[in-house]
Amino acid sequence: MSVSTDPLEPPRLGEPYLLTPGPLTTSFAVKQAMLRDWGSWDDDFRAMTREIRRRLLALLGAGAEAFDCVPMQGSGSFAVEAMLGSFIPRDGKALVLANGAYGQRAAQTLRYLGRAHAVLDKGDYLPPRGAEVAQILAQDPAITHVVAVHCETSSGILNPVAEISEAAYAAGRKLLIDSMSAFGAIGLEPAQIRYEAMVSSANKCIEGVPGFGFVLARKAEIEAAEGNSHSLSLDVHAQWAALETTGQWRFTPPTHVAASFLEALRAHEAEGGVAARGARYARNRDVMVAGMRQLGFETLLDSRWLSPIIVTFFCPADRNFEFSRFYDLMKAKGFILYPGKLTVVDSFRIGCIGQMDEHVMRRVVAAAKETLAEMGVASAAPPAAALKERAKLAA
Amino acid sequence: MSVSTDPLEPPRLGEPYLLTPGPLTTSFAVKQAMLRDWGSWDDDFRAMTREIRRRLLALLGAGAEAFDCVPMQGSGSFAVEAMLGSFIPRDGKALVLANGAYGQRAAQTLRYLGRAHAVLDKGDYLPPRGAEVAQILAQDPAITHVVAVHCETSSGILNPVAEISEAAYAAGRKLLIDSMSAFGAIGLEPAQIRYEAMVSSANKCIEGVPGFGFVLARKAEIEAAEGNSHSLSLDVHAQWAALETTGQWRFTPPTHVAASFLEALRAHEAEGGVAARGARYARNRDVMVAGMRQLGFETLLDSRWLSPIIVTFFCPADRNFEFSRFYDLMKAKGFILYPGKLTVVDSFRIGCIGQMDEHVMRRVVAAAKETLAEMGVASAAPPAAALKERAKLAA
Ligand SMILES: Cc1ncc(COP(=O)(O)O)c(C=O)c1O
Ligand SMILES: Cc1ncc(COP(=O)(O)O)c(C=O)c1O
Repeated sequence: MSVSTDPLEPPRLGEPYLLTPGPLTTSFAVKQAMLRDWGSWDDDFRAMTREIRRRLLALLGAGAEAFDCVPMQGSGSFAVEAMLGSFIPRDGKALVLANGAYGQRAAQTLRYLGRAHAVLDKGDYLPPRGAEVAQILAQDPAITHVVAVHCETSSGILNPVAEISEAAYAAGRKLLIDSMSAFGAIGLEPAQIRYEAMVSSANKCIEGVPGFGFVLARKAEIEAAEGNSHSLSLDVHAQWAALETTGQWRFTPPTHVAASFLEALRAHEAEGGVAARGARYARNRDVMVAGMRQLGFETLLDSRWLSPIIVTFFCPADRNFEFSRFYDLMKAKGFILYPGKLTVVDSFRIGCIGQMDEHVMRRVVAAAKETLAEMGVASAAPPAAALKERAKLAA
Repeated sequence: MSVSTDPLEPPRLGEPYLLTPGPLTTSFAVKQAMLRDWGSWDDDFRAMTREIRRRLLALLGAGAEAFDCVPMQGSGSFAVEAMLGSFIPRDGKALVLANGAYGQRAAQTLRYLGRAHAVLDKGDYLPPRGAEVAQILAQDPAITHVVAVHCETSSGILNPVAEISEAAYAAGRKLLIDSMSAFGAIGLEPAQIRYEAMVSSANKCIEGVPGFGFVLARKAEIEAAEGNSHSLSLDVHAQWAALETTGQWRFTPPTHVAASFLEALRAHEAEGGVAARGARYARNRDVMVAGMRQLGFETLLDSRWLSPIIVTFFCPADRNFEFSRFYDLMKAKGFILYPGKLTVVDSFRIGCIGQMDEHVMRRVVAAAKETLAEMGVASAAPPAAALKERAKLAA
């Protein structure tokens, strides 16, 4: 399997590329699949739902037989909440591994639900390591579930879920994974990494449009989840039971979004599946990061921790640099960037996912170079505080 | 203002009309608005969100100044749950007025939430009346909120929300309305009917595609709702606070669905607003019901209670009639019907909403006539049990 070197079809209507971690730039074919209406009760749509569930399960790879797929209306956070509320029993206790906004959000969700939980808070980006998890689990026998974020999109770090899984199961606990921004580009084979359930959404690495998420979970866990959920709408077991008995989503599905997602799943397979999708994104990252570094930009993370999903750069120290102006000038050139989420130093992010390839990434770098010149930024080097921040990870 | 007699543009690609209460047949322009990608953080999309909120508020009419609009990801049921969980305080008690599936679902939602509630259960379709509500409220001072369904879509009845509102506020209680299938076609002016909040969704009378719902609520209630919600995702106050401070939805919005909804809102205005939309649907109903009655079909409800949204017909008693065959033959002619939800006798439903006018409705009746002939159904008259059922409402 080889990564194509043909440029992908560019966005139409003069619209900018979305260098963001979803919503992202989708193919025209994916959007065109939304040009008709379906009755949600009708067989035609039920067949589409069946195919979506089957294809998502197949993406899991070895070990998928033990799993089932439950789509869930709403954004990705709704699917995370559905997973937490459905699989952590009311008398359970979760250990949330947080190193950014999405780990924090999982903890916040559990606070809303009134479910007992502890948080290992690693700050803005430092990875939670297996040994730390093992230690906490040894000290707190009440913990029943570990909650991990696969790619913590707020910094772009790829968390070490394999060693986290080992620590969790070695201690007899269960693992739930938020793989929102990674699934479909980074493997999460149950035969290789043990876990009970994971979630992702339509508008990430499968390259669909936003409107629903999905839970992939062990059938035994789904069956045992009856009565756990704090919410009718977000009850994974009830949604699954309806799908199994009627073939329909319990409540009105986003029919057009689902149709386009099916188109996206077919394109994902045609490209070569998870490996090929991940390879294209990794190449996007490599070309983009190399180019940006050549301009003097520095990444928050050293290369070892960089995901092929999204990369955080420090804002240049140069006083002529101002992110909102950089954003506007890049947008005028056809590229929408993403603001950073670090609390300590200024940063911004560039996504590597969506209908983009290395040719596009070279143009991103060229546009950044031009923009720095327009802004009168002589050097893209970050302030000393940023480099001090970065040294923490190496330590 | 007059209702146009020009036929609307028919669906393309040979797709059938959806005579269903949402998802429904939308215009091609509405679907075409989904042919591009937006960054949810970007100003262009924030401006769209602002316009959607402003336009929805304007549809309320007199008294809208005291209200605000909070869109909510997910299907309509998610928005109902968000409203109930956010506005009924944890120590409150709701009286749910149920006469069909959606009233029952509101009660089920409250069971999940663990919020105290009583249910006035009127069975499959009998309307809850103001006097009954007044009596229950007089007997149970713990009740703080009344929950009513505007058009109970499972039978098609238009519930008497004006008299329900009078009874609620005369007793010093608050009213929450599920106007899912009615809003945008049937007026719900706060100056005329008092209530605290109502919900609807994108894919009903505004004729958008499914993917989100919205809450229209008094600002004072939204402000007071902080801390009430059982769910992070479904917290109306938190969603509103984010919209007010950042102009963004809290979590990833269904950008394409929102774009198409904005197009639908503009078309709604161009048609003449709530009055004109309601007039077209009423004409759809009148033409369709008259035609079906001429074929011998009988409606569950007598004309006084028929909504312009969807109409329930009894299945013919003739032994050659079988709904699934009727459905398939009607679908082959380009019309998707909707199964009934009555528990006592067999029924089916025909929706009047969506991009359809009286010309389409005449073709629906002609197709039904042809289908009866194909099936060898001599008479469309219902069984005696159905007419006995119907006599209950007259009593
Ligand atoms: C890792 C992760 N978790 C959760 C979310 C939340 O998803 P959404 O914004 O669709 O609610 C995101 C969104 O980017 C994410 O990257
Ligand atoms: C009155 C009413 N309430 C609630 C709902 C639930 O909406 P959804 O199916 O989008 O969850 C519907 C759907 O038709 C409805 O008609």
